Amino acid sequence: MTVKQLSMPDLVDACVQLDIGHVGLWREPVRAYGLEATAKLVRDAGLTVTTLCRGGFLTAIDPAERAGALADNRRAIDEAATLGTDTLVLVSGGLPPGSKDLRGARERIADALAELGPYAERHGVRLAIEPLHPMYAADRCVVSTLTQALDLAERFPAHQVGVTVDTYHLWWDDQAPPQIARAGAAGRIHIFQLADWTTPLPEGVLDGRGQIGDGSIDMREWKGYVEAAGYTGPIEVELFNEGLWARDGREVLAETARRFVRHVIA
Amino acid sequence: MTVKQLSMPDLVDACVQLDIGHVGLWREPVRAYGLEATAKLVRDAGLTVTTLCRGGFLTAIDPAERAGALADNRRAIDEAATLGTDTLVLVSGGLPPGSKDLRGARERIADALAELGPYAERHGVRLAIEPLHPMYAADRCVVSTLTQALDLAERFPAHQVGVTVDTYHLWWDDQAPPQIARAGAAGRIHIFQLADWTTPLPEGVLDGRGQIGDGSIDMREWKGYVEAAGYTGPIEVELFNEGLWARDGREVLAETARRFVRHVIA
Repeated sequence: MTVKQLSMPDLVDACVQLDIGHVGLWREPVRAYGLEATAKLVRDAGLTVTTLCRGGFLTAIDPAERAGALADNRRAIDEAATLGTDTLVLVSGGLPPGSKDLRGARERIADALAELGPYAERHGVRLAIEPLHPMYAADRCVVSTLTQALDLAERFPAHQVGVTVDTYHLWWDDQAPPQIARAGAAGRIHIFQLADWTTPLPEGVLDGRGQIGDGSIDMREWKGYVEAAGYTGPIEVELFNEGLWARDGREVLAETARRFVRHVIA
Repeated sequence: MTVKQLSMPDLVDACVQLDIGHVGLWREPVRAYGLEATAKLVRDAGLTVTTLCRGGFLTAIDPAERAGALADNRRAIDEAATLGTDTLVLVSGGLPPGSKDLRGARERIADALAELGPYAERHGVRLAIEPLHPMYAADRCVVSTLTQALDLAERFPAHQVGVTVDTYHLWWDDQAPPQIARAGAAGRIHIFQLADWTTPLPEGVLDGRGQIGDGSIDMREWKGYVEAAGYTGPIEVELFNEGLWARDGREVLAETARRFVRHVIA
């Protein structure tokens, strides 16, 4: 999504040119290019798919809507397996229209995970609950903290349900570092994602994730937390940013790789 | 601030007409009308000033900037005393330019409170640290949760430093209800404020606080938490909302009073 302006073949080619061996994919562009075609494209290029984004939206009360969401999540699990990734990121969903019951919504997510976890396991896929910043609690994700995500995940085996650790959503929370340790000890950090926090936030607060190094987050500090927790998996940079999307995609990818080296691993 | 389009005399008159006996004031309109003149106006009308908003912005590293902030907060304490309110609300301040150190910023707030608390006490004023929603952590307030606010406040006597409980900032946090109990047990809930959470958030996320009843927050639930914690003080409705500011101020105040009756106390 960081460079959604690139076609799937251009994205894969740009990754190969930049010596980026791993890529996280979103369902919409995969569907647009074709699931099997995407799987072949990345495989032939020698790329590993780190995660598929995203399943979730599991908070509906209406039975038909709920059944539809579960079916869609099973499809997402199938797609992840076809793409060769073992991780499906879940964005849990917000409050149903008119509801003010965050607790009830969180319980419905647990109910859905009880159905989806075993299905995912049979397909070799792990579900990674992503706590989203509290500013999304009403309309996008009622799971706002890593603590809440782990409280949900720990009702299930770690190879079925874990968490996504994303700096953009967690950087403000002084409880997140000890929760990363808790997640790591249980083998539940299924993916680690980076985006920087820049202000002012844009209207709707969806597409203001800052390029690495442009904002308030100390990326090395957070990399240190997941490493200290035993995490050795891939690190995704996931930026939703109108400014970056308006630029040449290959240039943005190259810049992102340079920022990653400078602010994360150098 | 809910009806900042009203002049001070019109605000006071509208409160009297609507049988609203208490009003929370902000420093800027008080200064514009004159401190002594405002004090006389509200006193003559029989109104009680619940709080003065706001002091704070105590995170600067630069010594001159820091000294300026402390001096400004002493003035705010003087103003609160002159207006006859015992509570000054504090918005702590964000990260200094270029800083990524939330912990350090929070420690500087504690240092400032050690200087301001005794000064406030001598003037009969309590400081009320307001945790602001985590979406303001970088640019406005590094104190994002009631837990953090209480951890700061508890280093000082309760009659010097307590907290502001505002539904808009805390509604998403499942740790806030037990923290309200903690605050109440220590006599540290210095003011209770209401605003509703509506989406989409506007650019800059400052002026999108919803009218009571328009959003995702169960106001009775939160009133129940502060009451169960022993709070018997005033309840402020504090809305920053471009849509409400564009309307007739008396009409908005009357609507707000009706919403308060319907969604909070009926």
